[in-house]
Amino acid sequence: MKIKYNLLKTEKNTKARLGIIDTNYGSYETPMFMPVGTRAALKGLTTEQVKQCNAGIILANTYHLWLRPGEDVIDHAGGLHKFMNYDGPILTDSGGFQVFSLIKEKDKDKSITEEYVQFKSHIDGKTLLLSPELSIKIQNKLDSDIAMSFDECPPASADYDYLKNSVERTIRWAKRGKAVHNNPNQALFGIVQGGPYEDLRKYSATETVKIDFDGYSIGGVANDGESKEDMYKAIDYSVCYLPEDKVRYLMGVGDPIDIIEGVIRGVDIFDCVLPTRIARHGQAFTKHGKINLHNAKFIEDFTPIDQECDCYTCTHYTKSYLRHLITVGESLGGSLLSIHNIRFLIKLTEDLRKAIKENNILEYRDNFIKNYNKKNTD
Amino acid sequence: MKIKYNLLKTEKNTKARLGIIDTNYGSYETPMFMPVGTRAALKGLTTEQVKQCNAGIILANTYHLWLRPGEDVIDHAGGLHKFMNYDGPILTDSGGFQVFSLIKEKDKDKSITEEYVQFKSHIDGKTLLLSPELSIKIQNKLDSDIAMSFDECPPASADYDYLKNSVERTIRWAKRGKAVHNNPNQALFGIVQGGPYEDLRKYSATETVKIDFDGYSIGGVANDGESKEDMYKAIDYSVCYLPEDKVRYLMGVGDPIDIIEGVIRGVDIFDCVLPTRIARHGQAFTKHGKINLHNAKFIEDFTPIDQECDCYTCTHYTKSYLRHLITVGESLGGSLLSIHNIRFLIKLTEDLRKAIKENNILEYRDNFIKNYNKKNTD
Repeated sequence: MKIKYNLLKTEKNTKARLGIIDTNYGSYETPMFMPVGTRAALKGLTTEQVKQCNAGIILANTYHLWLRPGEDVIDHAGGLHKFMNYDGPILTDSGGFQVFSLIKEKDKDKSITEEYVQFKSHIDGKTLLLSPELSIKIQNKLDSDIAMSFDECPPASADYDYLKNSVERTIRWAKRGKAVHNNPNQALFGIVQGGPYEDLRKYSATETVKIDFDGYSIGGVANDGESKEDMYKAIDYSVCYLPEDKVRYLMGVGDPIDIIEGVIRGVDIFDCVLPTRIARHGQAFTKHGKINLHNAKFIEDFTPIDQECDCYTCTHYTKSYLRHLITVGESLGGSLLSIHNIRFLIKLTEDLRKAIKENNILEYRDNFIKNYNKKNTD
Repeated sequence: MKIKYNLLKTEKNTKARLGIIDTNYGSYETPMFMPVGTRAALKGLTTEQVKQCNAGIILANTYHLWLRPGEDVIDHAGGLHKFMNYDGPILTDSGGFQVFSLIKEKDKDKSITEEYVQFKSHIDGKTLLLSPELSIKIQNKLDSDIAMSFDECPPASADYDYLKNSVERTIRWAKRGKAVHNNPNQALFGIVQGGPYEDLRKYSATETVKIDFDGYSIGGVANDGESKEDMYKAIDYSVCYLPEDKVRYLMGVGDPIDIIEGVIRGVDIFDCVLPTRIARHGQAFTKHGKINLHNAKFIEDFTPIDQECDCYTCTHYTKSYLRHLITVGESLGGSLLSIHNIRFLIKLTEDLRKAIKENNILEYRDNFIKNYNKKNTD
């Protein structure tokens, strides 16, 4: 069976939604944060450790798995769940984001064609082609629970005309992908693009919804350098044209405040490499903003990152020990901070679900932001 | 209380011993393999994962912890157990091995004095001094369950006269260390040196035993390039002068066959970085010798490293997946192989205990070696 989204409730004062996604690997409440296991592994964590963070859906990257070990190996293993030992649901991206980031500005015209995208492998420099059809066929073989349509990912600098053409191409590509999709246990999501422009978002959303997907993504909002205001607008302009009975996924967003603002605007699921990436650089989320464990003030701080956090790291290790691991370069430090940061974002979505139930999500947001931006005096 | 060794039985046909060590953190049977957590962390593993391997005593390195985070930080944390979240027993080495390895050949005469050893920190090149007294004082603060005497570690190339002087100095240093040892919950072990020479081993062992330690180590046997024959002789020449009622520790030995040969010669405990080091290079112990997960033959091998192994890795992951992780450079690969390799050596000592109980350790050894050296045809 394919995943099914059930809307349970909309918060009284906002568009925030409480829902449940039924999957072949259990049912999970939304809003939800999905940790990222790029190459079929959450950096340094076993899948048991990921589950202990109360994770639901996790994300894996089609581009990376296509190159290594190859979709056939994973197919022969019995699919991605068996291959990586994860008995929860998995979403695969289309590979588009990685592929477009590998194309140099000067090669754009000849590399991006209507038929396919041509680029050089980041591993051996070999020229490769990825098309909407191939992306879907690879994802069919990976056997994730949710596959993503192959979209054109425009650069942050793209102007209105560029984005307009890009939106139109993305719609054509979405149709081509859907036409070859062939996995009865895998949902297929469409992607709304259009940058910060209301008319483009409207066009992209309505046309994509006409194709009829199992869920809808909002893309093109996590570009570096984009203003928060533009991001929130892009969400607003997209969500209002999406059907109530399908799940909504904001791609690549993991900043805590952005998650809250996304939920308030009607988004259900989020993913981001942020919690694991900042962990490897010694940073941890706290209610009072991010802290950097390299800081000398933690040398003899024998308290956990957060006294109230229920994660494995906070219930077993002190900031002093974590600082030691980070300072000497023990990889365990990054793993323990990843556990905390993933749990932090998952706990945030649990709190948001509670706030939706209690109809006080705006109050929750204001309190969260006040604490998060307050100078940390730990 | 200090650790206490209880000899339960000596195997019928050899000197192999079954024993129990009572510690403040539980009682553990010997022979035992101790995994190494150099900088108060087993490379990439949580202490829960180490415990799941059925580990007893683990080892931490005084030199590394002295430099970072410093023994005072660990003292203020409440000792090494609390600092690193390990509720099993911990042995600290003296720092001697690391310090001697940092001294250049040309600086030997002025760097190694009767009073102390002078060397340059591997971190910032700063000149530091370590003495027998300071090593013990640091270990007292680390609050490990077992501290090691500070011994002179001679180079593999040392001749008889060098080793004779070194043995005499090590005995003087052992006395100086014991004189300042001051931690009622910490045992102190003496170290037998003397290279491959019977008379030096005898002298070193008898004089060290006269000082009266809580246990005895056999050092200077894990040098690169030393022959197996010399290693086994050095063990034989040392063990016969050690008291029955004290535990015997062979330092730095982790090759499976060497562990078996050591046990047969009357050794009780072993430590080595080998299982975690080879893991990071993609190697795994098996009954049929070491295998390298980089090998292309494992690309679609959907069986575990060892069907009969009860470790977390073998019960959850295939060689195909492990090969993928190792090939793409995901640190989880090294962690999962470390779990398997540590469990392999611990399981080996469990099997050796059984063989001692059943008085068939020579048969066990012969079978093990026959399988281990057989060309792996997996």
